Amino acid sequence: MNLDDANRLDAADPLRALRELFTLPEGLTYLDGNSLGALPRATPARLQRAVEQEWGQGLIKSWNSAGWIDLPRRLGDRLAPWLGARPGEVLVADSTSVNLYKVLHAALQLQQGQRKVIVSERSNFPTDNYIAQSVARAHGGELILVEQPEDIAPLLDERCAVLMLTHVNYRTGRMHDMGLLTRWAQQAGALAVWDLAHSAGAVPIDLLGTAADFAIGCGYKYLNGGPGAPAFVWMHPRHDGQIWQPLTGWLGHASPFDFDSDYQPAPGIQQYQCGTPPLLSMTALDTALDVYDAAQKLGGIRALRNKSLALTEAFMGAVEERVPGAAIATPRDAALRGSQVSFALPRGTDGYAVMQALIARGVIGDFRAGDPELLRFGFAPMYNGFADVVRAVDALEDIIATRAWDRPEFISRSKVT
Amino acid sequence: MNLDDANRLDAADPLRALRELFTLPEGLTYLDGNSLGALPRATPARLQRAVEQEWGQGLIKSWNSAGWIDLPRRLGDRLAPWLGARPGEVLVADSTSVNLYKVLHAALQLQQGQRKVIVSERSNFPTDNYIAQSVARAHGGELILVEQPEDIAPLLDERCAVLMLTHVNYRTGRMHDMGLLTRWAQQAGALAVWDLAHSAGAVPIDLLGTAADFAIGCGYKYLNGGPGAPAFVWMHPRHDGQIWQPLTGWLGHASPFDFDSDYQPAPGIQQYQCGTPPLLSMTALDTALDVYDAAQKLGGIRALRNKSLALTEAFMGAVEERVPGAAIATPRDAALRGSQVSFALPRGTDGYAVMQALIARGVIGDFRAGDPELLRFGFAPMYNGFADVVRAVDALEDIIATRAWDRPEFISRSKVT
Repeated sequence: MNLDDANRLDAADPLRALRELFTLPEGLTYLDGNSLGALPRATPARLQRAVEQEWGQGLIKSWNSAGWIDLPRRLGDRLAPWLGARPGEVLVADSTSVNLYKVLHAALQLQQGQRKVIVSERSNFPTDNYIAQSVARAHGGELILVEQPEDIAPLLDERCAVLMLTHVNYRTGRMHDMGLLTRWAQQAGALAVWDLAHSAGAVPIDLLGTAADFAIGCGYKYLNGGPGAPAFVWMHPRHDGQIWQPLTGWLGHASPFDFDSDYQPAPGIQQYQCGTPPLLSMTALDTALDVYDAAQKLGGIRALRNKSLALTEAFMGAVEERVPGAAIATPRDAALRGSQVSFALPRGTDGYAVMQALIARGVIGDFRAGDPELLRFGFAPMYNGFADVVRAVDALEDIIATRAWDRPEFISRSKVT
Repeated sequence: MNLDDANRLDAADPLRALRELFTLPEGLTYLDGNSLGALPRATPARLQRAVEQEWGQGLIKSWNSAGWIDLPRRLGDRLAPWLGARPGEVLVADSTSVNLYKVLHAALQLQQGQRKVIVSERSNFPTDNYIAQSVARAHGGELILVEQPEDIAPLLDERCAVLMLTHVNYRTGRMHDMGLLTRWAQQAGALAVWDLAHSAGAVPIDLLGTAADFAIGCGYKYLNGGPGAPAFVWMHPRHDGQIWQPLTGWLGHASPFDFDSDYQPAPGIQQYQCGTPPLLSMTALDTALDVYDAAQKLGGIRALRNKSLALTEAFMGAVEERVPGAAIATPRDAALRGSQVSFALPRGTDGYAVMQALIARGVIGDFRAGDPELLRFGFAPMYNGFADVVRAVDALEDIIATRAWDRPEFISRSKVT
């Protein structure tokens, strides 16, 4: 595939209208939407209105007149269909880490002290494992990490309280079978907690269909809610009324404006709200979900998923063909793949310097200093296209072939970060 | 004092230049800055830049180039002098409720299970007491609430782990003697945790001078950070390295980008960061602190405090004189008063309906449906003036004298809220 081929494919893309709903820097190939999603075109004006009208003019009245008080639930309702959940089951609040803390405590309470082990993967995003360590310790239990997905099943024993997994692995882009692993966990008497940070908005999710127990996820990756956008949390309705999550802030109270002395949790997911939410950041996420409404009319998650798989498939094929020695870490099997591609370069090629050289040519992917193996490229089907695939691989091929990465300005930066 | 007198006083106000740094609706008398601060004039353009340039154009690079990664610490450093703390000791993160959860857990850990009782006031803002109930229960202890400040001292016994107080009471505006109560608590072997939600930016605070143990507070009241602005947290440096707070998210890790498997807390206040912060809301708070820089040049907290006391004194005097039967709940003694005035109306006068009638005339104060006694008026010395005092009392006097509140549109609203 060359750039002409790619442009033809992009012109025939049934989702191409979505690209126009984003503002991206001219000439940039942005393949890091799995880390921070792009800016929807409508967001600046909407946020200006929130600041100047709702805050500046409406002031305290906007809690009612601008609907601030309902925003966490309203955003949850808008997200629900993309998660396979129903309206009223999802809440937008706090950060992914804070929401994970809430649901893990709730899950361990449901186990009533009979089971205290949380099982997860060492390759999970670190914050999930750190939070799980803290919660397990608070309950007198422990976090056990597996090295390979194949090692999970043997740990689902009578000690296992919770299987906590990130649906799509942030490093490799490998996707778990949520239905199968949830069933295994529950058959063993454990609860299934899913982190959807790298899934929401990019791959089909069916929380109710898989009968998972809890889920949390991030608003600023494929959902395009803006830097540090608030996160979401979901609980299966069968757990309603069984437990209290420990962050018992006033907005999770059954009657927050009665100013009772004692905490009484609100029914359902509302009890997972804690303090007053950051409304400007919430408003940016609200606007971002308008793009998802537009996507729904163009085929919804099925169309997004098909495009995502075509992009990652094309990228993997081109990398294998044109980057000698690249070892692709992402599954070729579409059923096991999220919406990103990761690969390692041959020994002797400084991955960080390669990424810096790519960035200097206007191609942005991700490389973590603490993980000096993998170059990672996210494909956001809303705004990435086949031309992005070609431009990225063209640049990569040339940088490797000419050793353009082997320059002091790229190498030295890899040492200070 | 009539409007001419008030205008003369306002014209002579050494802080009058600060009023011009805010945008307020034309003709509105806004006396609810203790609930949601007004919009600084510079905020819309700054936020537009954050959205369009930092997010839209800078994308992932803005974590470094726009300084997003340091923002929680940088905001803390900017706040520190207003709290009597040093740079490096304060962090802006999460919500007030979430930060209280962190510091209460830390405080109870410091007591090593020897003491498990948290003492506070029933009239505390509910979220504080709800969070304290949760934390006390997690440690096998309990929350004991006093009805009157005078009842605190007898409870500072060998069971008391933490004295948790809000410096300025949200209902009455009564201010505690932070130095004295901290000393009493510590002499009894307890730790002192202060909620500065209704103090920060409005009254002098000396955390290091009083040697308090922990403090938290709110960014959206007198600090004008915008609706739901992130909150702040402070820990006395003597506790550094002694304890872990339980919300062990990756940005509180000693080396967050090393992606270690095990959590190791960062030194100092940095470990109180958890997940990725809501950067648009953080940026609004950053801009709001520019107004505090301007205030510093005009006399700082001393000048703000003097003006605040003059405004609340004038308001109380006028209410006593012109609103028959009003029972002022706020201390007349300046040493016991924050920056608001609360009073109850005589039996038979519907306080909620009175507040609705005031709002209809362009005077905004606060009235909580769950607390059907007190009308509350906050005086933000940065943008309120003596003319606001006169306009509010003129409207109030007329509404009471003519029973203008006794109309279906005001009364009926008091029943549905």
